[in-house]
Amino acid sequence: MEAAYRPTLRTTPTRYAERARYDRQSVHDILDEALVCHVGYVNSGSPVVLPTTHARLGETLYLHGSTGSGPMLAARTAPSPGLPICVTATLLDGLVLARAAMHHSLNYRSVVVVGTARLVDDQAEKRRALQALLDHIRPGRSADCRAPNTRELAATGVLALDLVEVSAKVRNGGPSDDLEDRALPHWAGVVPLSLTAGTPEPASDLGGATPLPAYLR
Amino acid sequence: MEAAYRPTLRTTPTRYAERARYDRQSVHDILDEALVCHVGYVNSGSPVVLPTTHARLGETLYLHGSTGSGPMLAARTAPSPGLPICVTATLLDGLVLARAAMHHSLNYRSVVVVGTARLVDDQAEKRRALQALLDHIRPGRSADCRAPNTRELAATGVLALDLVEVSAKVRNGGPSDDLEDRALPHWAGVVPLSLTAGTPEPASDLGGATPLPAYLR
Repeated sequence: MEAAYRPTLRTTPTRYAERARYDRQSVHDILDEALVCHVGYVNSGSPVVLPTTHARLGETLYLHGSTGSGPMLAARTAPSPGLPICVTATLLDGLVLARAAMHHSLNYRSVVVVGTARLVDDQAEKRRALQALLDHIRPGRSADCRAPNTRELAATGVLALDLVEVSAKVRNGGPSDDLEDRALPHWAGVVPLSLTAGTPEPASDLGGATPLPAYLR
Repeated sequence: MEAAYRPTLRTTPTRYAERARYDRQSVHDILDEALVCHVGYVNSGSPVVLPTTHARLGETLYLHGSTGSGPMLAARTAPSPGLPICVTATLLDGLVLARAAMHHSLNYRSVVVVGTARLVDDQAEKRRALQALLDHIRPGRSADCRAPNTRELAATGVLALDLVEVSAKVRNGGPSDDLEDRALPHWAGVVPLSLTAGTPEPASDLGGATPLPAYLR
């Protein structure tokens, strides 16, 4: 397997080409760190963008939802080979403040995946995908909960999107003001941002005998 | 003005209807807190979803970008009245772990806005929108940086989307396991998540005489 995705017209940015990355490692790392993504599809000619969770297994990205949800209904009624979607995951790393209004920015890492999603019919693949979605929350969780039963499995739709047409985009570092602006009396720099996990809060009906698992500590 | 947006077919969720909110205050609060949104549009029949920043002024949402960026080019070539877009902003509040795989979830607050975006041609409105985008980073920033000059203004496109077809969706609280699962020996509860700002890092070329402004402290 090649170490990088091949850029296409759709995955080549119109601006800031130097921020684009196509190596699999960068793409995988961003997808694996992001807890949510935004999935876009076309419904009656109009764009729809919804937040959802995802999980990557090798070179396939999985999304899930109720079989009655918008994306699942769209996928079920899409003509072969499936539903054209765009999945975008974005990690926010900082506010970038420049002396010039124009050069304000954000530090971020994002991945855009475009392609045709297929509904997963194979029950073994579906179970693997749902396990991956649980382990994406915290590694180890799929082995520490009650697995879905037949009824629950039937009520859940899983979409698979192969990682073929993919790009990452990364902005990091400080502001890049024009030379003639650098002496201006405005503060410039970066305010780092990170998604922070707080102290786990047990469910109100959790028995006192159930300890916090190691993967949540 | 009515206190709530009117639900439409497109802004009525297919599931978890109890999580939907249409009051302006909830929608405004989420849009104002979110530092990025994801904008979706249709390009040659395919969905495109890109992360971008936004700002709200009253009942209008503004997005900006290089005039050469994908969304701006699409807006410029869209037939009247403009480019159909969907803008979604999502705040992540927690991981929800249930005893049953099926009931794992996230706590979140999201807003979906659908409508037709218009390119802002009026120069005064454009300047106001760009100021709002700066003040969205941190209130007060637009007055503490060099305003865009004529060349920069011309190179920047601004899209306006009126808040008409809008919904928020909020999930909060603990897991909701089925009664028969509550005695299972799996930990259940919420891991709170929040986007945290770290210590501001001055630009490497910032003079020592430029203090950190109050709005960043």
